Amino acid sequence: MAVDLSVALKRWTAVVGQDRVFADEATLDRYAASTLPRAPRPLAVLRPRNREEVVGCVAAARRSGIPLYPISRGKNWGYGDACPVREGQVVLDLSGMDRILEVDQTLAYAVIEPGVTQGQLAERLEALGGALWLDSTGAGPDTSIAGNILDRGFGHTPYGNRPQFVCGLEVVTGTGEVLRTGLGHYPAARAAATFPYGIGPSLDGLFLQSNFGIVTRLCVWLMPRPEAYALFVCSLPRDEDLPRAVDTLRGLKLDGTLRSVVHVGNDLRLISSGRTAASLGAEGGALSTAQREALRRAAGIGAWTFAGGLYGDPGQVGAALRRLRRSFRPHGWQMNVVTSRRLDLADRVLPLAGRFRFGRQALGKLRAVRGLFNLNRGMPSRQFLAGAYWKRRQGLPEDFPARADPALDNCGMLWLSPVMPMTGEQARELLALVEPLFAEHGFDFFVTFSTVNERTLAAVMTIAFDKENEDERRRAEACYESCFGALMRAGFIPYRVGIQSMADLAGGSQGYWPLVAKLRTALDPDGVVAPGRYQPDLPAPEA
Amino acid sequence: MAVDLSVALKRWTAVVGQDRVFADEATLDRYAASTLPRAPRPLAVLRPRNREEVVGCVAAARRSGIPLYPISRGKNWGYGDACPVREGQVVLDLSGMDRILEVDQTLAYAVIEPGVTQGQLAERLEALGGALWLDSTGAGPDTSIAGNILDRGFGHTPYGNRPQFVCGLEVVTGTGEVLRTGLGHYPAARAAATFPYGIGPSLDGLFLQSNFGIVTRLCVWLMPRPEAYALFVCSLPRDEDLPRAVDTLRGLKLDGTLRSVVHVGNDLRLISSGRTAASLGAEGGALSTAQREALRRAAGIGAWTFAGGLYGDPGQVGAALRRLRRSFRPHGWQMNVVTSRRLDLADRVLPLAGRFRFGRQALGKLRAVRGLFNLNRGMPSRQFLAGAYWKRRQGLPEDFPARADPALDNCGMLWLSPVMPMTGEQARELLALVEPLFAEHGFDFFVTFSTVNERTLAAVMTIAFDKENEDERRRAEACYESCFGALMRAGFIPYRVGIQSMADLAGGSQGYWPLVAKLRTALDPDGVVAPGRYQPDLPAPEA
Repeated sequence: MAVDLSVALKRWTAVVGQDRVFADEATLDRYAASTLPRAPRPLAVLRPRNREEVVGCVAAARRSGIPLYPISRGKNWGYGDACPVREGQVVLDLSGMDRILEVDQTLAYAVIEPGVTQGQLAERLEALGGALWLDSTGAGPDTSIAGNILDRGFGHTPYGNRPQFVCGLEVVTGTGEVLRTGLGHYPAARAAATFPYGIGPSLDGLFLQSNFGIVTRLCVWLMPRPEAYALFVCSLPRDEDLPRAVDTLRGLKLDGTLRSVVHVGNDLRLISSGRTAASLGAEGGALSTAQREALRRAAGIGAWTFAGGLYGDPGQVGAALRRLRRSFRPHGWQMNVVTSRRLDLADRVLPLAGRFRFGRQALGKLRAVRGLFNLNRGMPSRQFLAGAYWKRRQGLPEDFPARADPALDNCGMLWLSPVMPMTGEQARELLALVEPLFAEHGFDFFVTFSTVNERTLAAVMTIAFDKENEDERRRAEACYESCFGALMRAGFIPYRVGIQSMADLAGGSQGYWPLVAKLRTALDPDGVVAPGRYQPDLPAPEA
Repeated sequence: MAVDLSVALKRWTAVVGQDRVFADEATLDRYAASTLPRAPRPLAVLRPRNREEVVGCVAAARRSGIPLYPISRGKNWGYGDACPVREGQVVLDLSGMDRILEVDQTLAYAVIEPGVTQGQLAERLEALGGALWLDSTGAGPDTSIAGNILDRGFGHTPYGNRPQFVCGLEVVTGTGEVLRTGLGHYPAARAAATFPYGIGPSLDGLFLQSNFGIVTRLCVWLMPRPEAYALFVCSLPRDEDLPRAVDTLRGLKLDGTLRSVVHVGNDLRLISSGRTAASLGAEGGALSTAQREALRRAAGIGAWTFAGGLYGDPGQVGAALRRLRRSFRPHGWQMNVVTSRRLDLADRVLPLAGRFRFGRQALGKLRAVRGLFNLNRGMPSRQFLAGAYWKRRQGLPEDFPARADPALDNCGMLWLSPVMPMTGEQARELLALVEPLFAEHGFDFFVTFSTVNERTLAAVMTIAFDKENEDERRRAEACYESCFGALMRAGFIPYRVGIQSMADLAGGSQGYWPLVAKLRTALDPDGVVAPGRYQPDLPAPEA
């Protein structure tokens, strides 16, 4: 039975100290800030400094009957931010556990705590000479590496299929036991940081997108800096070019030419960069087709743009580029190749051309492209967060991108992230299903298709809404529910969901989730860790 | 409580029929045949035809209290063959479930049952036009694909890290429930064959190297045939060249030049091919250093030989070859490049040179190389089983390699398979630890180092012994135990073990195995599936 919160807080205070337990309204407001239309508010916030304190917090939580909701940096924007899935939980904020415990330059890995951010690791690697690159997501330097990986996020580089580049977790379970996966539970093991499978059954998969334990440490593999690196950017003039592009990319992924995650964004993804719907004259909230086409022309972009990195020695990158050109040419797609040298040259030449229209366009493109170029070599940037501000009344913060936090800035954003086989036909069917629903609810349709492995596309679609407009909030929820239901029914299952959908994941599933529940009970019999997280409501078992 | 076996057999007969239940001595002899010095004998053998019969067999086993030991083809040679880990179990032989349920040429995958062999899938793919290649192990065409993958075997091609190329299992648990992993439990899911993670916690890892369930179906990804393919073979003259080779290969794996699994074999791996110790005049069982060196010279090979495949278009393969040459040249290693065209040419020219010594040597090498060339494009061959016959009194079967079965042919063979970080120093330390133990026990030292991922080497070492010689059998066991213990203590943990070591896997481990036991109990409360399989003996919990 749950005890009084004040008793529980005393117990946690005994573990982490007075200065690391918070239950004041200002703090709770900050942790409850969300880009979602609405989200649960935590009862309190704990900020342990190390694994021992996490173990202590779990013990106190068990004793008190109040569950913990672990977060790393709490910047799971668009998917629930720092908020627990349900009411009545205490946030266990691991951001104070932010040590980079080891960087091995020979075997190319880092052992980190959950609070380590993309920016922090990027800086460390740079300080060590830049011989290793991390994989970075578009969420910017302030976000947690572990948090993203544990939610099975993906990035951009050849290490972008992130769960494949993790080797060993340290986990505190709901009974307070400390578990090391892979080979790490053998203290003498030599290959703990290099061989993820271990021996016997592998438990790592249980701790991603789950509430099976609290990850307090993990080893992530890093990418050695290649001799040569180039970004290719390709623009597809017409909406109907997408299916052929997907089929072409599938061939290039399957044959190993494209080792990185290629992202195919629609026009709005580029148009929205650094601007807002209001500033572009969207009537009633969404841009008209005519407005969109005019903006496309003004920006000199096509209906779709895709980009990806090529890595190797100059000969290998050259061979890959020749193969891409041969693949794209029959379709008439224009490919731009960006290298460090070309960027430097453009920096010197373009300002002179800036007084002409084509020069201004080129400068704008150069800015966008430099961000992508850096992102594809693991340099995080806040610039890709601009889309979150699309419907924010106040527009982008004045100091953007030096600072950006869509949740604290009261941006409204919901993500839908279904996966599908990587064929043009599947992408076409997805668009046919979802685009009308966005239009019906009066929202601009943002979509990026990403090649998350050699055979799968993830479509990440954003519902950007004005969070200060109650009517629009409701419409955003209705749009989301309508899309989510339609996608699930059509078999476009999400690779990841926001906290608002976790209860609904068992819809249409057979046999899986009851077994997951049994396994969870074995590791966390009292339900101390994040009840509700990727834990759907199950029908009562039949008598 | 276990019932009488005859009662249990009646129950199983009711499920699978009279003709698929065996308890006669001749059948049990065949299933008990093992390359190990000794192995448990099954009580009976059941051969279900489909998943429903597997479910029925599990129900009957639960009722009877007699556990089932599932095998796919039972050719886990060197690791326990078809034998249960413990006495008192009934073999559930899934070899009759051998349907290839689907081959998707667009998305490059096949859905297969556990009885499907490498040879069977290779033939099917060839019949479909050869646009897809499988990854093949050296164990030949008669072995199960699922069986190898579920034991986390590795192969040769870019798909050689086999657990990464599986997408969705169908499993019958110890309670008879049918589970589909990945997205397969959503009947409508589109990406079930392309997105392995599913949504929420991923359970696949639980069913590899375990006794958590019986896998009745799986989806394996296949590799599109590349435009160009070349095999490189590199010979290292001296024993002490190995560490530099390992460090060089690590660089080429990490930078993406080598996408396949490269195997580095010692001289005996090549010398033993198609010959036996006795025929080469080994005194007291093992070759002397002088004999080995003479054989090396006669075969025209070095102390170490490594080989791997390159895949891409002609430009990409050329760029990779140039990079390899630049990497190997400073060390003075000779690299031979094998292509289809060169093999055809050699076929025409070499027979003419066969009357000269260098010609005969070249012909012998050509034969060896052709097998490797084919293996690296997924064509299984029995020729690599020759090493298992090294100490067999009768030598190779007359019809080898048209037929080969080391267990039925009464070969003696034990494997030790530790993993280590991919550095020359680690490989050197391993050799320094193990080679003297082989010598001490009077066994030839066979070793292959394989780059099982970008950072890890697996060393597969064979103790080949005369199974008909009781003294040698005991020595083989002693040698194995001595090596296994020394390796575990030194932190060279195995990636896979034979049934004789499964009870000992908890040695030195902290916290992991008790949790594994809890999870297993959740899925198989009665211990119906393969008790002992990757299930170490645990110390009794403290009071």
